[in-house]
Amino acid sequence: MKNIRIAVVGYGNIGRYAIEAVTTAPDCELAGVVRRSLENLPEELKNVQVVTDIRQLGHVDVALLCTPTRAVPEYAQQMLALGINTVDSYDIHTGIWNLKQTLTPLAQQHKAVAVIAAGWDPGTDSIVRALMLAMAPKGITYTNFGPGMSMGHTVAVKAIKGVKSALSMTIPLGTGVHRRMVYVEKENGFEENQIEQAIKSDPYFVNDETHVLFVPDVDALIDRGHGVNMMRKGVSGMTQNQLLSFEMRINNPALTAQVMLSAARATTKLMPGAYTMIEIPLIDLLPGNTEDIIKQLV
Amino acid sequence: MKNIRIAVVGYGNIGRYAIEAVTTAPDCELAGVVRRSLENLPEELKNVQVVTDIRQLGHVDVALLCTPTRAVPEYAQQMLALGINTVDSYDIHTGIWNLKQTLTPLAQQHKAVAVIAAGWDPGTDSIVRALMLAMAPKGITYTNFGPGMSMGHTVAVKAIKGVKSALSMTIPLGTGVHRRMVYVEKENGFEENQIEQAIKSDPYFVNDETHVLFVPDVDALIDRGHGVNMMRKGVSGMTQNQLLSFEMRINNPALTAQVMLSAARATTKLMPGAYTMIEIPLIDLLPGNTEDIIKQLV
Repeated sequence: MKNIRIAVVGYGNIGRYAIEAVTTAPDCELAGVVRRSLENLPEELKNVQVVTDIRQLGHVDVALLCTPTRAVPEYAQQMLALGINTVDSYDIHTGIWNLKQTLTPLAQQHKAVAVIAAGWDPGTDSIVRALMLAMAPKGITYTNFGPGMSMGHTVAVKAIKGVKSALSMTIPLGTGVHRRMVYVEKENGFEENQIEQAIKSDPYFVNDETHVLFVPDVDALIDRGHGVNMMRKGVSGMTQNQLLSFEMRINNPALTAQVMLSAARATTKLMPGAYTMIEIPLIDLLPGNTEDIIKQLV
Repeated sequence: MKNIRIAVVGYGNIGRYAIEAVTTAPDCELAGVVRRSLENLPEELKNVQVVTDIRQLGHVDVALLCTPTRAVPEYAQQMLALGINTVDSYDIHTGIWNLKQTLTPLAQQHKAVAVIAAGWDPGTDSIVRALMLAMAPKGITYTNFGPGMSMGHTVAVKAIKGVKSALSMTIPLGTGVHRRMVYVEKENGFEENQIEQAIKSDPYFVNDETHVLFVPDVDALIDRGHGVNMMRKGVSGMTQNQLLSFEMRINNPALTAQVMLSAARATTKLMPGAYTMIEIPLIDLLPGNTEDIIKQLV
C-alpha cells in the first residue's frame, strides 16, 4: 500500500497539530505545508517543505484545509479543481448545506472527494447526535459545550474598541444553556464600564448570561482544553426513559486535526462528491483492512 | 414515498419490541410476524398477521430476525435467497466476520442487503469504539457492561442440574472487568454447595469474580434495564490525555429492536451485500431527506 500524501494548507493552531496527526499516522505522509508567504517561517518548519502553491509539492492526495473557516470554500474549490481531495473543519453550522451544494458538482467533475465540517462540532458530535437519534428517535438531545475557550466569541471581543487582548470561556449550565465568562486586558485610557456594555450588547453575547472580568494578563489564562457533554433522554419504539450520554475532555485543536486526518483517509475510499461526517461509514476513517477492523471493533 | 414493509421473524423478547419499533416509525409498516407455529398465539398478536412462511405475507422489504442468535445464519440465508433484506442482532463476536463472509455472496446474488450484528454490543457500541479510535488512535478503550442481566450467562446457569430458575447480573468493576452476581432458585433435594461449584467452574464464569445467592423467587428480581460505560483515554496526533466516554442506561430489548429497525431503513439505501454497523453511513439509519437531516444534526 502506498502512503496517502497529505498537504497541510494554513499553519495556525490547527495546522500545527495537523502535521503531528499526519506524521504519526501509519498510512500517511506529509507532502508539505502551503502558506500565503514564505517569510517568518517558524523554527519547527525548517525541515518541512513549505510552498505558496500546492502544485509545487508534486503529487498530493489530500489537502487538509487549516485556514480560517471563512476562507474554506475558496480554498476547497481551488484544490478540488486540481483533482486534490479536501478536508475542512468548516464550523458555520448554517452554511454547511450550502458548502456541500457548492462543492459536490466540482468534486464530481474533477473525480475528487471533499469531506466538510470534519472537526468535533460540527463533526464527531454530529455523528453522536445521529447515533443517538437512531437509538431513541423521540426525545431531546442537549449539547453542552465546555468549559473551554470559544474561538469565535474571543475574536468578537478582541474586535471591540479598547480591548487589548481577550479570552471568552464557554461554561455549560446544562440543557444546552451556556454562560460566557469573558476575561479582558484593556488598553490604557478606556473605561471598563463601556467595554463591558459593548461586549454584553454584541450579537455573540446578547442572548447568554455574560460576565466580564478585567485582568492584567489574558495570556496567562489561556488553556486549549475543551469539552462537551451530550445527553439524550428518549424513546426507543414505545419504551420511554432511554438515557444516552457522550462526554469528552480534550485538547481542542489536537482533536480537530486528528478528526481531519481520519477524514482524509476516508476521502481515498469514497466515490467523488462532497460529504459530511454522518454520510461516511466509520470504518473508512480507520487505517487497516476491513477484516482486522471488524474483528477488533465489532 | 412508499412505506418500508417489515416482517418480524421470531416473537421472543426482542420480537415484541420490534413490533413497537416498526409501528412507531414514520416510514415503515408491519407486514406481519413469522413464527414456527400458529398455536398458543399471545393475545396481543390477535390483530397482527401471523404466518409460518414469510412468503405468505406478500411483498416484504426487510425481515427483522428476532430469533435466538444461533438460528440467525440459517434464517438470514433463507430470506436473502428470496431477495428479502435482513437485519439481525447476532451477538457472537467471534462469528461476525464469518457470518459476513457467508451472507455477502448470497446477498449480492439476490440483489439484497443484510445488516448483521445490529444491536447495541455488537452494534451501536461498535460504532462508538470506531469513532473513539478515529478521534484518538493510540490508547485503550474499556467497555464496561451493566449493571444488567446477561442473557447468555443466565441461560448457562439454567442448564445446570438442580437449578429451577436463575438470573445472572453483570456488574461493572471498571477497566473492562466484571463481577457476576448469580441469583438461583433451586429444585428441592439439591445441595446449594454443589450448584455453586458447578456455576463457578462453568466456562462462562470461571474467569470472573462470581457470587452465587440462593433466593426463593428469581422472577421477582428480573428487570430488563441494562447499560454500558465506554471509556477511552488516548492520543490525538502527539497530544496525550484525550478523554472520551459514552454511557447509557436503557431497556435492553427495546434498544436492540430500535437499532434493528434503524438498520432496516439502511438496507433500502445500500448496495447489495452484507454490512456491519461500522460499514454504514449513520445518515442511512435515519428517516427523512438528506438536506433536512444535515441541517438538523451536523
